[in-house]
Amino acid sequence: MSMPSHGSNPKYVYEAMGIQIPNQYIDLSANINPLGPPQALSEKWKVFFKQIVDYPDPYALSLKEVIMEKEKMDHDWLLIGNGGSELITLVARFLAKKRVLIIQPTFSEYEKACRVNECDVSYFRLNEPNWELDIDRLIPLLENADAIFLCNPNNPTGILYPQSTILRLIKECKRAGCFVVLDEAFYDFVETYESSVGLCKDFSNVIVLRSMTKMFAIPGLRLGYAVTNPMIIKELSAFQSHWSVNTLALLAGEVCLQNEAFILMTQEYIAKERQKLFQFFQKEAFITSASRVNFYLLRDPKIENQKLLFRFLLEKGIVARHTFNFPGLDGNWLRFAIKSTHENERLMEVLTEWRMSHH
Amino acid sequence: MSMPSHGSNPKYVYEAMGIQIPNQYIDLSANINPLGPPQALSEKWKVFFKQIVDYPDPYALSLKEVIMEKEKMDHDWLLIGNGGSELITLVARFLAKKRVLIIQPTFSEYEKACRVNECDVSYFRLNEPNWELDIDRLIPLLENADAIFLCNPNNPTGILYPQSTILRLIKECKRAGCFVVLDEAFYDFVETYESSVGLCKDFSNVIVLRSMTKMFAIPGLRLGYAVTNPMIIKELSAFQSHWSVNTLALLAGEVCLQNEAFILMTQEYIAKERQKLFQFFQKEAFITSASRVNFYLLRDPKIENQKLLFRFLLEKGIVARHTFNFPGLDGNWLRFAIKSTHENERLMEVLTEWRMSHH
Repeated sequence: MSMPSHGSNPKYVYEAMGIQIPNQYIDLSANINPLGPPQALSEKWKVFFKQIVDYPDPYALSLKEVIMEKEKMDHDWLLIGNGGSELITLVARFLAKKRVLIIQPTFSEYEKACRVNECDVSYFRLNEPNWELDIDRLIPLLENADAIFLCNPNNPTGILYPQSTILRLIKECKRAGCFVVLDEAFYDFVETYESSVGLCKDFSNVIVLRSMTKMFAIPGLRLGYAVTNPMIIKELSAFQSHWSVNTLALLAGEVCLQNEAFILMTQEYIAKERQKLFQFFQKEAFITSASRVNFYLLRDPKIENQKLLFRFLLEKGIVARHTFNFPGLDGNWLRFAIKSTHENERLMEVLTEWRMSHH
Repeated sequence: MSMPSHGSNPKYVYEAMGIQIPNQYIDLSANINPLGPPQALSEKWKVFFKQIVDYPDPYALSLKEVIMEKEKMDHDWLLIGNGGSELITLVARFLAKKRVLIIQPTFSEYEKACRVNECDVSYFRLNEPNWELDIDRLIPLLENADAIFLCNPNNPTGILYPQSTILRLIKECKRAGCFVVLDEAFYDFVETYESSVGLCKDFSNVIVLRSMTKMFAIPGLRLGYAVTNPMIIKELSAFQSHWSVNTLALLAGEVCLQNEAFILMTQEYIAKERQKLFQFFQKEAFITSASRVNFYLLRDPKIENQKLLFRFLLEKGIVARHTFNFPGLDGNWLRFAIKSTHENERLMEVLTEWRMSHH
């Protein structure tokens, strides 16, 4: 069995590695808010049951109103999606057979979706260990691209590209007649994030993708939205199947977006945990990416093959995310989600144990 | 505002008709089991909440095992879909730019999905009031089709085509090099239905679509499956976005399929209600389709324009399904779901009132 192409569902990685799945494990392979879904959602859960007998509103009017208010955009600039991955699929379909440049290393679904749609895919590779977005090196390539995919803050590095860089990139792309697909799936984990949504109004080549499953810990429900100009929204909608977004996702989305305090609490929690973890990593001589979000890359410079560490962790009941399918990482790093204090402490314990035999 | 293209979400039809939506109404525009969801699902609901924090299993292994057992098919002959409508979208994509023949009147999503995929769409029209599937008239057309779409039992007529006809059609299509997309979304409402799933093994041109949202009253969750040969399954899967089927749909599907008694109870309930309704319609001189399922077509022969009746019902708080977007029906019939005894009785009351002024 080959290595799974995504985190979560640890049974598949245990199977691929030929390790018996333990009774208890800590899954750090999926970048989901450790604080869980907001309390308000659990309170509504019983009431929601009554609504599964009705078809979802295919126009998602009620949820759209909440997003319109939040993003200050009209309804025809929005498309609600069955998770961020559906939106990526729809955008890739919109770009069928076009020349697509993907800023790597990044989320693997962009490439997968583009290839299904017979796009001509090329990479612009950022260099470790800083993965800096070097626009001057990128600009000459835009002439030969119809669209670029950029994830900010980036998955899997957790690196945040400055808004000034993003703005310059959008302008250069506009000049070159190139769409910018800007995936902001993790934007709300960054305290100081400057939203790109407003740029859609000024630049008709910008498509912003948002996920609601990471911050609100509802990946099982599937929910995201796209913001772009109405002409593109119309084309994307045509490719979407009817009733694609289920009733619970719509209802949960409304409840979640009205929980601004939950986002702030999460940002604070993650920042504190990240600081503790990174102090530990520095002390124990592990190398990490300069993450600004709820996950980070890590490698142990004292070993050549990081798979040894990956296996060690799995055997100890800690599931990291391998990076074999991220071009430029090629398995040389492991990705970890920042989870609850208890879970992060367990990770540090196990890594301390590892360090004793690998120093 | 134009008339909505589907039932459910009555606010849209009230808006289109310029009628104030009443505080209470009976929605007969969506063909959902009046009994349900199964009790077992409501019992599990609270436990399911814990699982929304995990990504759905993208391979749906656990649900697939239940379906494999039920349908006696291997896992690579199955695709789980985000509702029947996603499966239609995927099949239409598979048939992109091909010549597609749709047996009309039928569910409007086939045509919509095929047109998005630039298929060359033509119709084979069945004639009212029996909508019989006249194979001899159909066969000559197969030479000029790459695929046909057939819904059995058919939505919106509720007519069941005999299995001998289906088998003959599949054979003729096979000979003509034509795929048969057989939508069995309502098959489990028919007590004596002979499944077509087994035919997939003998005929590589057959794609069977199944919905789980009608019988189990979970349209809000979105769930269906396709059965066809592994080569087609592989192509359809490639077009599907990752994690397309949400966790709740997967969990609910498992619970529902293990409730064989619920299906039998539903069949009995619907048959009894249908009999009562049809006796009333005959007595009051309304014309209906010879439905074998949980919905039927109706028209009042005493008026020319059925929209008058449609409007009267809406004003009385009864939502029927208009048929303006069904080629061959063109608004001349109304579709009604068979719902609970109480709701069906209310329909008869209101129609009695209508009859007093239209005789």
